[in-house]
Amino acid sequence: MNLIDKTLQKITPADSASRAAAHARMERLTMPTWALGRLLDLAEDLSGITGSIKPPVKRKTVVTMAGDHGVVEEGVSKYPQEVTVQMIHNFVAGGAGINVLARQAGAKVVIVDMGVKGDISSLVKKGEIISRSIGRGTKNIAKGPAMTRDEAIRSIEAGIELAHKLSEITDVFATGDMGIGNTTPSSAIIAAMTGCDVDAATGRGTGIEYNQLVRKLVVIQQALNVNKPNPKDALDVLAKVGGFEIGGIAGVILGAASKRKPVLVDGVISTAGALIAHGLCTQSVDYMIAAHKSVEPGQKAALEKLGKVPLLDLNMRLGEGTGAALAMPIIDAAVAILTKMATFEEAKVTG
Amino acid sequence: MNLIDKTLQKITPADSASRAAAHARMERLTMPTWALGRLLDLAEDLSGITGSIKPPVKRKTVVTMAGDHGVVEEGVSKYPQEVTVQMIHNFVAGGAGINVLARQAGAKVVIVDMGVKGDISSLVKKGEIISRSIGRGTKNIAKGPAMTRDEAIRSIEAGIELAHKLSEITDVFATGDMGIGNTTPSSAIIAAMTGCDVDAATGRGTGIEYNQLVRKLVVIQQALNVNKPNPKDALDVLAKVGGFEIGGIAGVILGAASKRKPVLVDGVISTAGALIAHGLCTQSVDYMIAAHKSVEPGQKAALEKLGKVPLLDLNMRLGEGTGAALAMPIIDAAVAILTKMATFEEAKVTG
Repeated sequence: MNLIDKTLQKITPADSASRAAAHARMERLTMPTWALGRLLDLAEDLSGITGSIKPPVKRKTVVTMAGDHGVVEEGVSKYPQEVTVQMIHNFVAGGAGINVLARQAGAKVVIVDMGVKGDISSLVKKGEIISRSIGRGTKNIAKGPAMTRDEAIRSIEAGIELAHKLSEITDVFATGDMGIGNTTPSSAIIAAMTGCDVDAATGRGTGIEYNQLVRKLVVIQQALNVNKPNPKDALDVLAKVGGFEIGGIAGVILGAASKRKPVLVDGVISTAGALIAHGLCTQSVDYMIAAHKSVEPGQKAALEKLGKVPLLDLNMRLGEGTGAALAMPIIDAAVAILTKMATFEEAKVTG
Repeated sequence: MNLIDKTLQKITPADSASRAAAHARMERLTMPTWALGRLLDLAEDLSGITGSIKPPVKRKTVVTMAGDHGVVEEGVSKYPQEVTVQMIHNFVAGGAGINVLARQAGAKVVIVDMGVKGDISSLVKKGEIISRSIGRGTKNIAKGPAMTRDEAIRSIEAGIELAHKLSEITDVFATGDMGIGNTTPSSAIIAAMTGCDVDAATGRGTGIEYNQLVRKLVVIQQALNVNKPNPKDALDVLAKVGGFEIGGIAGVILGAASKRKPVLVDGVISTAGALIAHGLCTQSVDYMIAAHKSVEPGQKAALEKLGKVPLLDLNMRLGEGTGAALAMPIIDAAVAILTKMATFEEAKVTG
């Protein structure tokens, strides 16, 4: 059996007994019933995920997956493709948004080359990034499939392997992305997997003007028309209109779920990866936590399909895992409430 | 001149030069323009508040103001009045929601008796809480004014004095409340100050049933009819339909603003206090940060009047300062982005 199938078999539903025990304790805490709302919902989810009423959440890792996209030759992005590699150097130097926000949250950042176009072998040699490169950028989805089915499988397997390895030092995973042009395949995946219209799935990415947005809509529709991805076959969707880093993100989610670890899903690219994971294994949603509502409109349809409501809504659209890192203190707070707040009996307060 | 007038005179607009400098730097950071959205807005606000592009935010204090309310004799709350004092003991023991969330945020909690009914002199003697008690609970607002105008002034002055004293050890203030029945005066203040209907200003507080909610609506309408608070005179509104802890909260906000320190405003009771502060000094809104959207519907009209959009929306309705404490890591993250993220030039990334 291959690694994907083996991993899917290990993904079981969240533990209902731990959920119930956490729920019962939180109903006795010194506050009006469920008065901390979604903080308590989250604590209950974390109990179900980890199978514990004291969910371990201390060690956090953001896995930021990078890849390039052949479709940028269609003029869908504001920035040139070399920015992907430039930003990887910025990550390594510690100056990017994800570095700053992960440090604030006490999280480790792992940068993975899933298939960027430029040369970053010097960074790989120095051990500053991990290489799981499937190829030097995908092919142009407006003209044909992004990658072969085998490459799609390998991109997901790379994410699974990485999550399995990192799970030894990680309690909470977070996904992130870097790749100029990657809102285009993400929107294509979302339109394909949810059945929503291309315009509902598509936004301005890095901040393109209206004329370029119209061009992007045409390109995404063309990618769907040319490739005809099968929404019942997530591997087909990933291969035809996806990206290497999006496959990697799906793999990290599945790998984390198979180890019963929570995964904070970042913005629209990560949520597209989550749709691929969900397409392969419905049950994997139990392990996903939607970190934040992106400015990108496509994320809405994707989150609805996954049945998730994001924790934060701060008008963000940077990616990299920044929304996931910013949501981490809420995870810590939820667990602290579950484990450290006094009950009515303990505090001798009239319930 | 009295302390309130002296304090109001010291409240100046946020510093526009610091705002502009912070804005200019953040436009050059390595991300698409303003891609971290409200995190950047917040960093800009903090620069304007503190007059610095490196806003100090490390030392945080939650001031939780407690008071009792004569109107509970009308049957507006689910919990008996003695819970106010029981919860103060819970605060002192460190087991309440605000203790847990403030610890997570690295914030100090200061509990202040602004006028509870029960005896807590032993806690005051031991120095575990601060007493600024104006009286042993307000009078029943359904029958007449909550307090005299002089008591209203003294409650605000107590908050100002406390904020001035705490400002020596505090970079970021947060307000919180404790007081069985205190959503009733808060809703009355909101209806009076914003002109919204009583039903738009009123919710289920600790979780009352529908019949009791109807009773609460009648009581609040009666309080407004009997007292006729003058919305152009915030002291009149506070005296007639307010509470001692709500005056204290207004005072903390004004005191912090006069020291150019940001104040995280918690839920509906704190926002009612913020309306009183705003009524006394429009400019004080520059120093307020709305921490979270409460379940209580009245907060909406109050926030609109203040022109604020809350940072978090997590279905919370506990008070105590819990929403403010939960928002603190977002403050830290905003300042970290402003001060620690690399610019395009520094990182050699194509802008």
